[in-house]
Amino acid sequence: MTRRRAGLTYEEAGVDVAAAERFVNAIGPLVRSTHGAAVVASPSTFAGLIRPDVSGLTDPLLAATCDGVGTKVLLARGPADFEGLGRDLVAMSVNDLVAVGARPLLFLDYLASGRLDPPRLEAVVRGVAAACRDAGCALLGGETAEMPDVYGEGVVELAGFAIGLVDGAHLPDPAAMRPGDAVVGLPSTGLHANGYTLARRALFDRGGLSLDDTVPGSGGATVGDALLTPTALYVEPVLDLMAAVEVRAAAHVTGGGLVGRARGMLPPGTGMVIDGSAFRRPAVIDLICTVGEVPFDAAASTFNMGLGFLAVVEAGRAPDAEAMGWLGVGEIVTGDGKVILRGG
Amino acid sequence: MTRRRAGLTYEEAGVDVAAAERFVNAIGPLVRSTHGAAVVASPSTFAGLIRPDVSGLTDPLLAATCDGVGTKVLLARGPADFEGLGRDLVAMSVNDLVAVGARPLLFLDYLASGRLDPPRLEAVVRGVAAACRDAGCALLGGETAEMPDVYGEGVVELAGFAIGLVDGAHLPDPAAMRPGDAVVGLPSTGLHANGYTLARRALFDRGGLSLDDTVPGSGGATVGDALLTPTALYVEPVLDLMAAVEVRAAAHVTGGGLVGRARGMLPPGTGMVIDGSAFRRPAVIDLICTVGEVPFDAAASTFNMGLGFLAVVEAGRAPDAEAMGWLGVGEIVTGDGKVILRGG
Repeated sequence: MTRRRAGLTYEEAGVDVAAAERFVNAIGPLVRSTHGAAVVASPSTFAGLIRPDVSGLTDPLLAATCDGVGTKVLLARGPADFEGLGRDLVAMSVNDLVAVGARPLLFLDYLASGRLDPPRLEAVVRGVAAACRDAGCALLGGETAEMPDVYGEGVVELAGFAIGLVDGAHLPDPAAMRPGDAVVGLPSTGLHANGYTLARRALFDRGGLSLDDTVPGSGGATVGDALLTPTALYVEPVLDLMAAVEVRAAAHVTGGGLVGRARGMLPPGTGMVIDGSAFRRPAVIDLICTVGEVPFDAAASTFNMGLGFLAVVEAGRAPDAEAMGWLGVGEIVTGDGKVILRGG
Repeated sequence: MTRRRAGLTYEEAGVDVAAAERFVNAIGPLVRSTHGAAVVASPSTFAGLIRPDVSGLTDPLLAATCDGVGTKVLLARGPADFEGLGRDLVAMSVNDLVAVGARPLLFLDYLASGRLDPPRLEAVVRGVAAACRDAGCALLGGETAEMPDVYGEGVVELAGFAIGLVDGAHLPDPAAMRPGDAVVGLPSTGLHANGYTLARRALFDRGGLSLDDTVPGSGGATVGDALLTPTALYVEPVLDLMAAVEVRAAAHVTGGGLVGRARGMLPPGTGMVIDGSAFRRPAVIDLICTVGEVPFDAAASTFNMGLGFLAVVEAGRAPDAEAMGWLGVGEIVTGDGKVILRGG
């Protein structure tokens, strides 16, 4: 089937089916490393099966999320970076799941490129599998698409999908939010996977910098290291907080940046004040603002500014959250949906 | 946030956040048109919630699939074609779900392009929503990514993800397959969404044809019409068959073509003979083979050849399947995993 012939075959058209099969076999052990007892053998390789454990849930609901890693893919230099992108991909979806209190159950990845590049794609799957193990979800399947004429040389597109389980009787309830409630947050590890088009334009096109330049104030990290740090996984700290304290709203800080995502948490009649001195802004964001002449409020509506996850709890429970490692970063005020990011 | 400034903002970097928000609002009614009573209001726009109905299932399992539409996207000419691609996207995933007997529950779409093109993307979502309604699953969320520098002008990348429910006590059991069993199939509507790289090379690069040329033997259809017909949805006929007859194995005929997917169904010690005269091969496949000098067996390992779905049933139950509209197309024989496609 894969031998060369006089006529045109799928291989000669640019799609290497045999290489795709070898790739699928090569990643088998990685995929299986994420499988717990809940995964059930499927009669088809095209559909994965899992037995959801709904014990202890009064009203078992499925939560579903979908995300990519944006143009961060364009910066990856080698296998370690592609492995990091695999971690990003899982984190982007499962962090959204825990924002509604759902425990990750399964993940699927869609990887597309112009020509199958097994070392690169295996590195991605290695990162996906590692993050799935960390997040406690099964990598239940995926699709590897070889699409000549769509993707240029070296570009890999990544999309991820995650399903989690949550008890409908214990969902966060933003309507319960009141002025005076506390906002707590978890630090980000960098830009995560949002705002890379702006970051690239600012640092490279306007600033003339390269991935090898040093980021001032970062203790010697390069621009490449700063931009390619994988997204933090917030599954355990968020589910632990929700088990201990009533969380009224939660947000994974992604598109829209810190200010945009904070605004999305607010019910009518409220606002939020965030104390920028309560957490550390990644040095690379300052560099982006400086060399790209990016206004601070534009940055705050694009980047996470140093906070990757936000939760709103009753003021009296903030010390409990802080004892669990969360940062007290702000409060809910009476307002018209505005978020004020002070100082920092 | 979206006004232009002296410095660089996300909009000036090529990402139009406001347009993305308008797009999300515009598709809201389409998304909601797929929502039945099972969909639960979510405290976050980044995670959809659904209450799975497991009544009547002895051992409720979740089935998960993921797929794209390949380079078929490169052929779309206008809104009707993009709507068709949305239908393709859902069909590619839910047809895989029913191959394990799972009833589709939810779907998520990932749409990516270089620059947000709302009419085009709305057409895609219109098709996705229509197919979700037809398949009985909720469009529970999705991601629209604007990725300058990854995608060229006019290219839209589509990835889809579906979850279904199946009773683990009634999964197809390929191990029960015996020589003499009957193979039944459902006609395809065209190439569906597989083999387009080969089809494009053969028809356009080698054959010098265009989308406006007529396909001989097709009753006057153009190459464009033949190539852009949406993938058939097999949810109802497959689940109806499985409810009436014990199906030992089933396959959605996709990557690997008719021969590759048929081979994937076979347990050790068996083979399959398919009678090519029992179904109609789309005229465009003959045209591809002729002008592209594509060998017949290469075509049969790339395209569905006219059969979009296969099921194996006990020989004595084939008449029941045929009474439900299935075509008797072959039989299981003693063998070493080989599939023979005879005549046609």
